[in-house]
Amino acid sequence: MSSSKPTILVANDDGITAPGIRTLVNIMKEIGEVVVVAPDSPQSGMGHAITIGNALRLDENDIFEGVKAYECSGTPADCIKLAKHYIFKDKKPDLVVSGINHGSNSSISVIYSGTMSAAMEGAIEGIPSIGFSLCDYGHQADMSHVKPFIKAVVENVLKQGIPKGIALNVNIPAKSAEPIKGIRICRQTLGHWGEEFDEREDPYGRRYFWLTGKFVNQDKGQDTDEWALKNNYVSIVPCQCDLTAHHLLSSLNEWNLSTQEN
Amino acid sequence: MSSSKPTILVANDDGITAPGIRTLVNIMKEIGEVVVVAPDSPQSGMGHAITIGNALRLDENDIFEGVKAYECSGTPADCIKLAKHYIFKDKKPDLVVSGINHGSNSSISVIYSGTMSAAMEGAIEGIPSIGFSLCDYGHQADMSHVKPFIKAVVENVLKQGIPKGIALNVNIPAKSAEPIKGIRICRQTLGHWGEEFDEREDPYGRRYFWLTGKFVNQDKGQDTDEWALKNNYVSIVPCQCDLTAHHLLSSLNEWNLSTQEN
Repeated sequence: MSSSKPTILVANDDGITAPGIRTLVNIMKEIGEVVVVAPDSPQSGMGHAITIGNALRLDENDIFEGVKAYECSGTPADCIKLAKHYIFKDKKPDLVVSGINHGSNSSISVIYSGTMSAAMEGAIEGIPSIGFSLCDYGHQADMSHVKPFIKAVVENVLKQGIPKGIALNVNIPAKSAEPIKGIRICRQTLGHWGEEFDEREDPYGRRYFWLTGKFVNQDKGQDTDEWALKNNYVSIVPCQCDLTAHHLLSSLNEWNLSTQEN
Repeated sequence: MSSSKPTILVANDDGITAPGIRTLVNIMKEIGEVVVVAPDSPQSGMGHAITIGNALRLDENDIFEGVKAYECSGTPADCIKLAKHYIFKDKKPDLVVSGINHGSNSSISVIYSGTMSAAMEGAIEGIPSIGFSLCDYGHQADMSHVKPFIKAVVENVLKQGIPKGIALNVNIPAKSAEPIKGIRICRQTLGHWGEEFDEREDPYGRRYFWLTGKFVNQDKGQDTDEWALKNNYVSIVPCQCDLTAHHLLSSLNEWNLSTQEN
């Protein structure tokens, strides 16, 4: 890591053997010096989980040709924390990229996303960080169209930087006959998952549930990530680690929060 | 649940047997009709994880006298999703409360917090939602001082409501000789965890790590939750599910994101 090329830490949430991270590593090798730290098993839906009740493993792995790689027993956020402690002790990487996730992380999915939690963890550390997701859940999804868009985003980030505490959430439309129209800066779509649980009985007569659901878009805006993706654009949403609803602070200050004689 | 009292869904992340949720249930029983859905085991640090690769269990539990309660095999966010599907199918609860967490969830800890993920999940559903945490990690922490503060917050929320997509992150100082000075509306402190990993070797010669660390406060503001807690106030931060860094959208729009001849 002594070259003048940028050092790039690659993580994901689908696990180190997923095709999406292989695609991302191959693209990043054209840009910088790559180190991979990724979960040893799929971690989808892990949100910003960290491992505090169990010990963590970190073992070298040689599945990427010419790339230093480690598999970690923890969550995507753990991968970034361990990488910082163990591999980038003396000098932070220049960039954290996470993905390519097999499936969209647009709208409210960002808060359930392990892919984005790795990027957010990088952002908390003040490292420019990006999560990439493809709107195709297939394990063998066609990713042949993603490279120019990923390179355009990464090159801008390396050139312009991103403020500390901000990570980019980049979603890429699935491969289709229509070419992608371009890249749009968006806001997070207002929406939620309308859950349905598939209720079943196990062979011993005990009930169990599978979480399923449909995304409900409650937002008609044309400046949203859902709109961009539906219209065949790559979406970029800058996401912040400060969750404060600053616009509400003054109205909450009007509440009577006295505890005298309540 | 046919009375005119508000219906209150109680969850947590320390698990259904933790003293914190017992304290919260007892306070909520004085205010409304309580239903508990909480994890069957500790889920600290679970962030906004949801269970999508495994089936979920939901079983009745009678540890709270006179209160309908269920233990769930999933995460805090799963608890809220299952409660909505299985118990509040026809009518949403009037309030979701989560906690009382054994340990602070101030500053950046909010994004790792299972307690707050249950509250955020309620907020996404448009239910007024609050996460309560005590700045004392002890399993047998003294919670004898918390009731007036929790009641003041809950009564305001039931009266005034909270906008959809917003949950309150309430932290309460640990019990001390000094009485608590009051309740303050705050913003999330800018800070991060300076991780240190405790590296060990197992009996078979393989390396493993324990995640430890110290909170680093990078924020000197007196309007933050850390300042409030240090000065013996209860802190309330309104937290939003929209992670968009709206203030960055215009500068990102200046980037050259063309993929032609990149």
